[in-house]
Amino acid sequence: MARGFSPLLEQLIASFQCLPGVGRKSAQRMAFHLLDTDREAARGLAHSLSAAVERIRHCGRCRMLSEHELCDLCRDQRRDDTVICVVESAADVLAIEESQSYRGRYFVLLGHLSPIDGVGPTELGLELFESRLSSEPISEAILATNVTVEGDATAHLLAEIAARHNVQASRIAHGVPMGGELEYLDSGTLARALSGRRQIALHQE
Amino acid sequence: MARGFSPLLEQLIASFQCLPGVGRKSAQRMAFHLLDTDREAARGLAHSLSAAVERIRHCGRCRMLSEHELCDLCRDQRRDDTVICVVESAADVLAIEESQSYRGRYFVLLGHLSPIDGVGPTELGLELFESRLSSEPISEAILATNVTVEGDATAHLLAEIAARHNVQASRIAHGVPMGGELEYLDSGTLARALSGRRQIALHQE
Repeated sequence: MARGFSPLLEQLIASFQCLPGVGRKSAQRMAFHLLDTDREAARGLAHSLSAAVERIRHCGRCRMLSEHELCDLCRDQRRDDTVICVVESAADVLAIEESQSYRGRYFVLLGHLSPIDGVGPTELGLELFESRLSSEPISEAILATNVTVEGDATAHLLAEIAARHNVQASRIAHGVPMGGELEYLDSGTLARALSGRRQIALHQE
Repeated sequence: MARGFSPLLEQLIASFQCLPGVGRKSAQRMAFHLLDTDREAARGLAHSLSAAVERIRHCGRCRMLSEHELCDLCRDQRRDDTVICVVESAADVLAIEESQSYRGRYFVLLGHLSPIDGVGPTELGLELFESRLSSEPISEAILATNVTVEGDATAHLLAEIAARHNVQASRIAHGVPMGGELEYLDSGTLARALSGRRQIALHQE
């Protein structure tokens, strides 16, 4: 849009390009779609964005995104207070909740150790994490950081902290995903799947 | 997000899913990206959206998106008043302008003939188009509707209208692939399609 177009339209297209995975063409498509066929949705999105930015903060206990001082997950009395699952991002909490396989508490690091970017224990809220380990009846910390060099380093640091507080640390299992085929897996995953093999317990009399 | 999450976050993710090509996972990714790492961009997008929805209307002469009564393209005195290019959408104007192979005027149909959806001559602004043909020094109408069944039907109707006003109608060349949509074409192909346009021969007795 080098010249001669509506500056507001130009600005809208540029704004859409701030979204992850949205390039110039997709941004144009989004702008034209909303302006040509769905202005109500555009108003709705503008309103949702403003409301979310103004009112969503981080939960004071687990650092999940929430518009309340304590998020719904932390306020839920029915969850298991003895287990805490540590993840890198709020999106990870969502993914785990959707798997419906965990009923404990959470702690969101909002990142991983990355000294070169200035992300250390303070940025990851590890003081808050330690205070929770000492004040809550936690007996196990499931370290569900990503399976990357940084995620592993972060998990290692967390395991040391947990050990200091006599809390058992565990790492989520790494291996072949459900439905995955060995021949298409990367060698790193295969290596982990092999080294993390478990004995088959046949049913006994 | 069946239960227990921030309603505002839920609403934001739902709003993102109104965008074309954005599903549940992409919408989550967008929401978390903006809230976790780039709230300034989120504010900017909300503001751009509101401004665009409130102030961008359709140009009174060519129906291009514009915040003025007449768009910048229509106000540009240096463009060729003897040629008019008829396209289906504002995005098509953008694509043609980016090919830098056309210096005439435009007319945007904002759709194509589609009786089943209730889109007829009125919805396509064909009265305005006819009044331009009679009042402006137009000698040629380049019909650049999409190369689809509906686009071809629309071009045929436009050619008939042009013939009534003694305006030569031409169709952009079939360098455009069948079923292809203008806004996703590369500029080179578009330039060839424009320069290779052919006169429409209406069936004669």
